[in-house]
Parts: sequence; structure tokens; C-alpha cells
Amino acid sequence: MADESSALFTDQYELTMLTAALADGTAGRRCSFEVFGRRLPNGRRYGVVAGVARVLDAVADFRFTGTQLDGLLAADIINAPTAEFLADYRFTGDIIGYVEGEPYFPYSPLLTVTGTFAEAVLLETVVLSILNHDSAVAAAAARMVSAAGDRPIIEMGSRRTHEEAAVASARAAYLTGFTATSNLEAGMRWGIPTTGTSAHAFTLLHDTEQAAFESQVAAMGVGTTLLIDTYDIGQGIETAVRVAGPKLGAIRIDSGDLAAVAHQSRAQLDALGAIGTKIVVSGDLDEFAIAALAAAPVDSYGAGTAVVVGSGVPTAGLVYKLVEVDGRPVTKRSENKGSVGGRKLAYRTHRASGTATGELAVQASAGHQPSDSDRLLSVDLMREGQRLFDASLEESRAHHQAAMAVLPWEALKLSKGDPGLDVSVS
Amino acid sequence: MADESSALFTDQYELTMLTAALADGTAGRRCSFEVFGRRLPNGRRYGVVAGVARVLDAVADFRFTGTQLDGLLAADIINAPTAEFLADYRFTGDIIGYVEGEPYFPYSPLLTVTGTFAEAVLLETVVLSILNHDSAVAAAAARMVSAAGDRPIIEMGSRRTHEEAAVASARAAYLTGFTATSNLEAGMRWGIPTTGTSAHAFTLLHDTEQAAFESQVAAMGVGTTLLIDTYDIGQGIETAVRVAGPKLGAIRIDSGDLAAVAHQSRAQLDALGAIGTKIVVSGDLDEFAIAALAAAPVDSYGAGTAVVVGSGVPTAGLVYKLVEVDGRPVTKRSENKGSVGGRKLAYRTHRASGTATGELAVQASAGHQPSDSDRLLSVDLMREGQRLFDASLEESRAHHQAAMAVLPWEALKLSKGDPGLDVSVS
Repeated sequence: MADESSALFTDQYELTMLTAALADGTAGRRCSFEVFGRRLPNGRRYGVVAGVARVLDAVADFRFTGTQLDGLLAADIINAPTAEFLADYRFTGDIIGYVEGEPYFPYSPLLTVTGTFAEAVLLETVVLSILNHDSAVAAAAARMVSAAGDRPIIEMGSRRTHEEAAVASARAAYLTGFTATSNLEAGMRWGIPTTGTSAHAFTLLHDTEQAAFESQVAAMGVGTTLLIDTYDIGQGIETAVRVAGPKLGAIRIDSGDLAAVAHQSRAQLDALGAIGTKIVVSGDLDEFAIAALAAAPVDSYGAGTAVVVGSGVPTAGLVYKLVEVDGRPVTKRSENKGSVGGRKLAYRTHRASGTATGELAVQASAGHQPSDSDRLLSVDLMREGQRLFDASLEESRAHHQAAMAVLPWEALKLSKGDPGLDVSVS
Repeated sequence: MADESSALFTDQYELTMLTAALADGTAGRRCSFEVFGRRLPNGRRYGVVAGVARVLDAVADFRFTGTQLDGLLAADIINAPTAEFLADYRFTGDIIGYVEGEPYFPYSPLLTVTGTFAEAVLLETVVLSILNHDSAVAAAAARMVSAAGDRPIIEMGSRRTHEEAAVASARAAYLTGFTATSNLEAGMRWGIPTTGTSAHAFTLLHDTEQAAFESQVAAMGVGTTLLIDTYDIGQGIETAVRVAGPKLGAIRIDSGDLAAVAHQSRAQLDALGAIGTKIVVSGDLDEFAIAALAAAPVDSYGAGTAVVVGSGVPTAGLVYKLVEVDGRPVTKRSENKGSVGGRKLAYRTHRASGTATGELAVQASAGHQPSDSDRLLSVDLMREGQRLFDASLEESRAHHQAAMAVLPWEALKLSKGDPGLDVSVS
């Protein structure tokens, strides 16, 4: 069912509100809902928009099947008029927003859905589920890519998260510059490069470590990566080079003090003549552990848990708030949960040198005239229900890299601090 | 594709190991892989096994389609002999383990997969994805249920997590005693009660709060729950009772100092004669916030983010380790990542009074004779590829409640501490 329809990735209250609005005549009011975050978590300096293509897929698939409607009627969740409305439901409104891979900041209006109340209110949950998950992973992944510098970094966290979230996580990580993923479904579904060689189980399966290495080299060639820390690392490296020869592709270290072990291993490999053999490290790496390995002789990183759980921040904290009804800005009045009414367009402002200086979020109705160095961030993603955004994942990845490259230097620091850019909302 | 086959929820290294093992003749060795956790995170005192039924579904659906095999061959991830093996893949081994809802502790052998190396190694990622996600949610949810005491608690976190993870989260929360979920797909797929009334957007849609309340009451009856904190809470309650009358079902408060507001709201409702109107609170509730509201006049809780992200622990930290090859126990030797070899059976031991005292994990080959007060935790879930576990979600929910009821009192504390039971592994 999930593959045919995204319509039940929905909180029940959306159908309750729809039912009441259909009855009282307000269902057809023209509304804009805005997705934004009130803060960046944990003193982070930027967020990264991810999941936009998945959101547009979900909107296109937001159709109620007969089985779904029968179930909702039988459970008394909807009445007959609501069922009739839902049977014909297709989103026919407009969506503008930040493209995939774009950095964002507190109050960046990163997605705005405009349509009748009826058609727009129903999308709240699925839109937020996708953006909150994928953007949380992307924000953490971008920091790891930044910490890794020029060294490749592989996403291998599938086993630590829900099986479908794993596929979306691999996608979000690749978007931000990860080199590859271990997840085969992500490779098949999204065209992401996949990689993987062996686990400790493969060594334990064999009578000796040497037998395991011989088998792997016979099957994969000497360019493979041998996992050398099942028993004793020094002995493992000696055996690995003896079996594969000095052209061994790489060794992987998954335990211990990685910096110390990398130095020892590099020295041992060099002494054995395996000067071209690379060192891959993995094992509970987050952005801080990766940064701490910058001076160690490491050639690439494998990051797992920390990527898929957003390195301490598993959800991006984005909300979907009604900001405009029939051209009238609306806001909720409550102490810590304020929002700014009105449908907005956002621009990123830049110095003449090209460095970004801030964001402006201006009322769409205001007819703001941008300067030449301003970049419009709110692009047409869907108009009258027709999808206009079709960037490939590779294109979005390139966009992310370009947009990050012009952020001010302070915005890229791993340490806690203020948001890298201020968003001026008017 | 995901609905037909779970086979690509898999890390590539499993196929690499399979390829090498098929070539060297070790693929047919009889292996047992054990799922366990080395510690309970954050000083928690118990974990909760969740996702067992989903694991067994995924094992049954672990079949490679022609399209998948063509893709793997084209990407040079597998060779022709491996493709031939995978084309006929069906898991034909045995799975024993803890039933869904069972509490567990460090080194509890909560799932053991036995079969040829080839058939068992391939299941690592999908088994761990499901158990790590669902058990993380269940562990957090169980603590919230415990904190809520006799008051109902509703899961409403879908928007904060991946859209499919949301469905699994609703299931895991219900397993531990949550009363209902907001997630409609969880209702449809798993038969979980669903609930939901309205959001702030519904009030903002209307010209006045009164118009919104009148519409909701007209559609849903006076038994509905009105959200009264869009503008001013005192005014909202006054309007709510004026519109619905003193038989108003409930009010929901989603912001502010919930304890203080609940006391004020209760007094105001009582003064207005709405003595039967209930108070529902929501807004960033975790187990500690719920516990802190124990003395406040609150009738039920809505918990969102904290449930679906495991209240600070979004993954359960479970691993899938090879423990036995052709009857020989195997273990990796590394400092912080030890495991105990051998296929094991686990028993929970109890005092004569019925209170649990610990767990024994004994070698399956040892022929341990349990005493009358011991309960075998390792039950047959699948034998020779045939599923034997078919408890309904309601039955698993009842099992969870019964198993929690006999844990020692210290094991149920929210504060950080040692695991509630020790697991003695021999």
C-alpha cells in the first residue's frame, strides 16, 4: 500500500479538520503553509535542506485508494462527504522552496505550500516526516564531510536505523558529499555508489585469519580491503600483506584508539613495503572523531551510527505552519512558538566577493527588487499540481557544494555558536 | 520494490563475503549469529524487544527479484555463481529469541539465527535495522508509559521521523502500552487505535476562535477535544465552554508551563461548570516531563518527538555477531567489543513470590535443567524456514505488561542506574 499511496502517512487530526472545514465552508479558502525551523539544534551553524525530491514524489502519490477510504469510513474517522472529497484528491496547488542541498538558518522559509485549506492541510505530516528526517541526517553528514576534508567518507549506518530510513539516510549523506554507501537499496533506487568488503564474521567463519584473507583476495583481487582487527592488529597486518602482497588495496581498522593504531599500522605497512596500501578507519565516528583524525595517516572514513541518527540530533525540528488565509497573514500568539505571517520569498545576499552575508525573507506580495548579488532561494517546485523541480541527485550534490563554498568561514566551524547567517524576516 | 522484497535492505559487504565463501567452500558451514546489546544506553535499567514480527516478515520477504539480480550483476557487485545462489535464496534455517515486548538487559541473547553461513550472513542488516529502531522506540515508550501511570498516553510523533519509521514507531509505542496513535497508516496496517482532533491551523483558518470551535463541535459533537491555546488560554477556555457547553469532552494545551496551566485550566473549567471536561497536554513531553506532571490535574498525555527518537537514544545499539561455526564457539578478540561464543538459551529466574531475579544464558548444547520458577526466554520463532511465532500485537502488548509487572521495583526507576537484572552468560 505504501508504494501506491502516501495518503495515510498522515495524522488523523488533518482529516478531522478537513471534515469540519468542508461542513462550514472554509475548506476552499486559499491558504499558505510554511515549513521552517525556529532554531538550529545544539549550537549548529547551518542546516541543510534534504528530501525535496522525496516530498514532491509523496505529493504526487498522495491519492486515497478505495481500500483506504473504506477503512477510514469503517473506523468512523471520516464521513461520507469527506470520503467523496478524498476520493478525488489530487494536489493542485503551488509549492515554492529551497532546492535540495541548500543550507538554511532559523526562520528560513524553506518550503511553502499554497492551495485550498483542504488540499494543503492534508500534506502536513508527510511533508514534515520527510524533511525532518532527511534534513537532520544531511546536517550531520555535511559536518562530517567538512571534517573529512579531501578524504573520502563512506556511509555505513543502515543497521542502526529503520530499514527505509536507512535508504533515505544514504541519500541525504550522498547529497552532502559522502562518497558512497553500504546500502544496496540506496544504490538501486537512487544510483548512489555502493561499497563493502567484509566483516569480522568472515574471519571467524574460517579456520584461520590467513584462510579468510586468502579467500577474500582470491574472490576480490589484491585491490580489496582486508579487515585486520579480528584478533591482533599487528599480526593481522603481517598476514594481510603476506597473503595479498605489497599491492594490497587497503586495510580497515574498526576498533581501538584509531589515531594511535593508524600511525602504528602505517609504519608497519611501510616497513613491509606496502607503501600504497590505504588505511580505512571506522567505528563510532562522528564529526568530532573525524576531525581529531585529521593528522593521522588515514586515507578514508566509514561513518555509521552518527550519520543516520543525525549525530545527536535525529530530527530537524521543522514545523508546518499556516501563515496566510485568503491573502491575510495569520500567526499564532504564544510565548515560545511564534511565527511570522504571510507568504514569503527568500533571497540570499552576498558581498561583491561572492561570500554570503545573510538572508532576506520578504512578503511575496511586496514586490521586492533584489540586487544583482542576491540569489532567489524560493524557487518554483510545483505549480498547479505540476512538478517543476527535477534536479538529479548529482545536480543537487553539486549545488550543495557550491552553496557551502560561499558561506562565511565562521559558518563552517564545528564548535557551537550562532547561526552562520541571519535571516531578516519582514 | 520494497514491498515485494526486503533483500536489498542489505550492506554490500554481505554479498562480498557470500561470494568469497561460495568460492572457497565455507558457505555451507552451519553458523549461528546472535543479536545482543553490550550495554543499556544512558543508564537505563531495561530494554524492550520490539520488531520481532517485522523481522519475521522481512525474512519471509527476503527474495531477490530478477531486476535486483540484474542490477547487482551490472554493477559488478556479484558474479554469476553468486547470482545463481541468490536467485533461489529462501531462508531455511532456525530462529530462536525473545518474544516481542520482552524486557532485555546487557548480553541477553535476544535473537539467534542459525543456518548456513550463506543464508544467515545475508540477514544481518535488515534484522538489525528493524530491531535497533523498534527496540529503541519501545524502550523510551515503556518509560513514558511507566511515568504516565494510569493516565492514557497517545503517540503523535510521526512528523518528526521518516514516514515509514513513523508507522513502526507507532507500533512499538502501542506495544509498550500507549493508548493510541495519530498515525493513520499504523491504524490501517497494524490495527492500532487512532485519534486526533485539530491543530492551531484550524483556528487560524477561521475568522475567530469561536467560529473554529463552533465548526468543530458541529462536525464532531461536544465530546470533542478543543485546542485552546492559539491566542489566550483563559479566553480560549471561556469560549470553548460557551460554545460546547459544560459537557465539552476535553481541552488540549500544547504550550506554556504545562503544570501551572493545567491547574489554572482545571480551576477555570470547574468554575464554568465543566467539571467532567478533561485536560489533555502535549508539547515536547518525554518521560521526565510526564513524571513531573503526576501531581497536576492532567487526564491524558500526547507524546511526539521524544517517542520516535527514543528520548535521546534513537538506536538500541544491538549487534549481530557470529557465535558458532559447525558446533564450535567463536569470538572476536578485541578490547571493548567482546562477545561470548556459542548458541545459547536464555531463562529468566524468579523468586517464589514471582519477582524476577536475573537471567541465565546457557549454551544450548549444555542441556540445562531449569527450575520451576525459571521461564525460557528463547522461544522458537522460525524452524527450517517456517514461521512459528504469530502472536498478535495485542497479545505482545499483554505479554509486555505481564513481564514488566514482575521486574524488581528498582528496575523500573527512571533515574540512571545499573541494569535491572544481571545476565549470567556461561
